[in-house]
Amino acid sequence: MRAAAVQFEPVFGDIEGNARRLAGLIEPVDADLFVMPELALSGYLFESTEEAEGLSQPPESGVFDRLAAIAGEKDATVIIGFAERADEGLYNSSLLMAPDGRREVYRKIQLFNTEKEVFLPGNRPPAIVEVAGVKLGMMICFDWIFPEVARSLALLGADILCHSANLVLPYCQDAMVTRSIENRVFSITSNRVGTEKRAGLELTFTGQSEMVSPRGRIIERAAVTGETVLVHEIDPTEARDKQITPRNDIRGDRRTDLYRLD
Amino acid sequence: MRAAAVQFEPVFGDIEGNARRLAGLIEPVDADLFVMPELALSGYLFESTEEAEGLSQPPESGVFDRLAAIAGEKDATVIIGFAERADEGLYNSSLLMAPDGRREVYRKIQLFNTEKEVFLPGNRPPAIVEVAGVKLGMMICFDWIFPEVARSLALLGADILCHSANLVLPYCQDAMVTRSIENRVFSITSNRVGTEKRAGLELTFTGQSEMVSPRGRIIERAAVTGETVLVHEIDPTEARDKQITPRNDIRGDRRTDLYRLD
Repeated sequence: MRAAAVQFEPVFGDIEGNARRLAGLIEPVDADLFVMPELALSGYLFESTEEAEGLSQPPESGVFDRLAAIAGEKDATVIIGFAERADEGLYNSSLLMAPDGRREVYRKIQLFNTEKEVFLPGNRPPAIVEVAGVKLGMMICFDWIFPEVARSLALLGADILCHSANLVLPYCQDAMVTRSIENRVFSITSNRVGTEKRAGLELTFTGQSEMVSPRGRIIERAAVTGETVLVHEIDPTEARDKQITPRNDIRGDRRTDLYRLD
Repeated sequence: MRAAAVQFEPVFGDIEGNARRLAGLIEPVDADLFVMPELALSGYLFESTEEAEGLSQPPESGVFDRLAAIAGEKDATVIIGFAERADEGLYNSSLLMAPDGRREVYRKIQLFNTEKEVFLPGNRPPAIVEVAGVKLGMMICFDWIFPEVARSLALLGADILCHSANLVLPYCQDAMVTRSIENRVFSITSNRVGTEKRAGLELTFTGQSEMVSPRGRIIERAAVTGETVLVHEIDPTEARDKQITPRNDIRGDRRTDLYRLD
């Protein structure tokens, strides 16, 4: 299959414009999976919860229709980070649009810093979405620092970690190599670029979107700045070989009888 | 405190000579903690279980006495990897010699490749040894690839991961940066150097012993070759601050209610 990491700089608050530009970025690209950054429609630094509410959508919102249509046309999966509106409040979520029209949501479990003032923490376990036989696991940005998130997805059978991010710290891209190695899965980190100055803060996002193989090879890593779409042919079944040596199965060798994980 | 990583090339099978040379390496060094490589007394590539048995010791063996005496003289802790002889068989173990004469053992949980033909897998959970108020957690080589080992030690309160290694793959040194970041603990990886040609195999060990801070800074990384002792002043209480942002506690933020870890 052909997998794509979309590195993108949204214009804060321009939901329709960002959706249109994202559609324009992927329309010419031949791929089966597109992973886009966290909060790619809205931008990141909200002045208030009310502002975030005004920039949020439910997963069935029409603002996703063009991207969903592209998924159908290309027989591809599109994953995008967005501010999810739910009855009980807002979630920092990823929406997966499958070629058959399904829309599946992952709600970020580990909120970063001031996100806690705007969003509710994810209330559902990490889960796998299977599309055309490929097992996709979604995670968002700061989830990376908790090895349990990627591990949960891998134990559920993930072939590819689809990691939508708005990274401001410099550690994650290297850490995702470790996440791929320790779980023997592909990882696609799609990060933001650019700087946001809002709410009395200034954040510069670190780009360097990347695709990593189950053996920890960085297939490609993008630059720190600039929108781009990385596309590579990958074989997701590589992630199902957990045999790291003739006598070591990275999954079977786990000693859950000895770990202390509570 | 002053912590030291000892990078060393043992002569295969020369138990007494290796012990003497290790003592000679640390005797002139002013430090409170010395971490030595895996199987530092015996070497790595055993021709048979019988050969390994002949090169194994119980923790109370006199071969450790000089190192234990140095620990007492310096008011320091010395950790060394060795082939542990037990009633039921051999373990790939680390011995911690405390300045008060205590000897504590960690048995490698995750055996690598052909080690499984020689050693029994560790049968005790990861544990902490407290010396002079500092909480030390031992782990050995391939344990690195299972995030659960370092995580278990961190959840038990480890300030420093004392990681004795005989690394042949190139990934671990970077991965240990991730282990430090995700757990906010110091890590000291003490690796072997040199090449062993035995049992029809040839292994070259990757050196690059390192000390990493709880924020993931590589305090120092040694060269690929050459024996050396890295020594740095570190403040182990830094590892007790798990607050990564004003709103994120790397330990308290864990969502054990949502992870799937069995």
